[in-house]
Amino acid sequence: MCAPYAVNLGVTLTVLSESCDDPAALVVPSSPVGAHTDLDAVRAFAAQCDVVTFDHEHVPQHILRALVDDGVRVHPGPDALANAQDKLVMRARLTQLGIPCPPWAAVDSIDQVEQFATEHGWPVVLKTPRGGYDGKGVLLAKSVAEASDWVDRLSGGEQLLIEQAVPFRRELAVLVARSPSGQAAVWPVVHTVQTDGICTEVIAPAADLDEELAGRLTRDALTIAAELGVTGVMAVEVFQIDDADGNSAYVVNELAMRPHNSGHWTMDGSVTSQFEQHLRAVLDLPLGDTRARSRWTVMGNVLGGDYPELYPTYRHLMARDPGLKIHMYGKDVRPGRKIGHVNVYGDDLLALRERAQHATDYLQGVITE
Amino acid sequence: MCAPYAVNLGVTLTVLSESCDDPAALVVPSSPVGAHTDLDAVRAFAAQCDVVTFDHEHVPQHILRALVDDGVRVHPGPDALANAQDKLVMRARLTQLGIPCPPWAAVDSIDQVEQFATEHGWPVVLKTPRGGYDGKGVLLAKSVAEASDWVDRLSGGEQLLIEQAVPFRRELAVLVARSPSGQAAVWPVVHTVQTDGICTEVIAPAADLDEELAGRLTRDALTIAAELGVTGVMAVEVFQIDDADGNSAYVVNELAMRPHNSGHWTMDGSVTSQFEQHLRAVLDLPLGDTRARSRWTVMGNVLGGDYPELYPTYRHLMARDPGLKIHMYGKDVRPGRKIGHVNVYGDDLLALRERAQHATDYLQGVITE
Repeated sequence: MCAPYAVNLGVTLTVLSESCDDPAALVVPSSPVGAHTDLDAVRAFAAQCDVVTFDHEHVPQHILRALVDDGVRVHPGPDALANAQDKLVMRARLTQLGIPCPPWAAVDSIDQVEQFATEHGWPVVLKTPRGGYDGKGVLLAKSVAEASDWVDRLSGGEQLLIEQAVPFRRELAVLVARSPSGQAAVWPVVHTVQTDGICTEVIAPAADLDEELAGRLTRDALTIAAELGVTGVMAVEVFQIDDADGNSAYVVNELAMRPHNSGHWTMDGSVTSQFEQHLRAVLDLPLGDTRARSRWTVMGNVLGGDYPELYPTYRHLMARDPGLKIHMYGKDVRPGRKIGHVNVYGDDLLALRERAQHATDYLQGVITE
Repeated sequence: MCAPYAVNLGVTLTVLSESCDDPAALVVPSSPVGAHTDLDAVRAFAAQCDVVTFDHEHVPQHILRALVDDGVRVHPGPDALANAQDKLVMRARLTQLGIPCPPWAAVDSIDQVEQFATEHGWPVVLKTPRGGYDGKGVLLAKSVAEASDWVDRLSGGEQLLIEQAVPFRRELAVLVARSPSGQAAVWPVVHTVQTDGICTEVIAPAADLDEELAGRLTRDALTIAAELGVTGVMAVEVFQIDDADGNSAYVVNELAMRPHNSGHWTMDGSVTSQFEQHLRAVLDLPLGDTRARSRWTVMGNVLGGDYPELYPTYRHLMARDPGLKIHMYGKDVRPGRKIGHVNVYGDDLLALRERAQHATDYLQGVITE
């Protein structure tokens, strides 16, 4: 999704693709095939680039560090990226910075799980430190019995992250971009609506959000970006909670160091899209205006459903809603997979949510009219 | 410039390019090299496509008709395109439809030129019926002596288009999209500011434009699109004049049957960009909303200047104006060549014009701060 913005800016992309029918390879002329875990392949690829960046966080640290040693400009760099690759690293660092987190610990035995639950109550949340996304790698355990399966599977030296299952009002996200020169820009705080652990809708800006809370969250995101040395776009996902005194507060749930689903609304809803901003940031160009262009923008995720053929649905959707902005990713349709999104913007939030919901339901085959 | 919108819609483009470093070839993975005047090359290319369209009007009629005979969906089709390829065909057809044109005639001798000038006054405008653009192929002749050079160069059977040099207030353009099913959509009428015969600035919508005149112009554009069987995007360029009674009126200057410079403002200024709309139209998908997103959008053309290297200027421009939307085309810089454009939008037209002017002056090397 950076490609359209690279075209406009005259920036030439080259993509190391998993296969020649990778969605990125379908739209970027230069897209050599190679694995992001293959040092030689990544190194040969990076030698062609002025700057290297990522569309996921899974490039191993030893490869990132080898590139840096080769003199390649890698954004975000390995030290920053470690916080998005390993949730235990992230929790330790955020806690050190005084950023609100849920109560957490590193555990490797069922005794430690039980001790944590005794202190913070059941259920608890168990997370594999690495590789999870969209609810994968996360277990809500209501008892020792439910937790023991994951603990038993640990190999020597492996740990799990355990967290209190924080009762929250809703999930929010704030997106920040930071350049190697240290310039940073933040978009308005958004509300991310989750269904079965997957984000299905984003409302920008979050409705009825206390200004003081939004300000604090924005400042914390800037602090994280600066202290972790983040370059490029980072999403900070948080739970909005009520604190012990009943006041509105938040705890950080996850960090993502790349353009993120919670920022797809910016493609049609902000002066500067997160994808243009990511390019500007990693190239160390001055950042663009992050203001919203409309009172409200609603993004709806299209998940793979029963309709493998999307194009017949275009005819109906475009005729029903000429203002609907459709973004499809060229991915194979698999049930539950994010294969596209839609954006709508305007003044009437309820109407916008209905339009986004209708469009995604229709593309997913949930409704047929 | 269609490529970014094709990416979003999941439409796969393939481009027949003049060379492998053609700007389109740099951003579209499938871009075989071949001449648009080579029947075999065009035919082999078209066999791979569901729909064929153009980014210029110069594909010869015999090639277009061969494709249609092969069963290829060609949009716009040869009958429509003939009106954009040959200004004499266009003038005859528009006159037949009752669309306002300047007084005109087809001439092939200096006697005919003199006769026309006696009737309509000097100066006269001479145009080669085919192949002109950006002021090329157009001569403002103030005397028989000035006109005779062009007339003398005519080969047997060739004619020139002669037109009255209409005194005009300003140039306007209206952009219309029409699909094979006959759906049509029009953007707001814009003011195109010309410098030395080249469009340098577009103001959308045109300021202080009489609503009745705008309505008439819009209806005429829709009539032209329907009667000529246009498919895809068409620009109608007109001169705003005062008629014999001193009332505001217009005469058509040119037709362009493709996304057009006068519509570049839509990329950031309208719900639907002309490039997305062109794809939707030629694919016979329902058309998108053509409303403006801001009170004003100003587009400034970047012409090749003294700065062959554009990227150092990005640093200054992006820092000075974070809301500036930059679109560069990946073309080699040649003096006077359109190599990119910028868009700005907002409520204060004077400020927007200053911002666009500064950005283009800076990119062109006219100013250095």
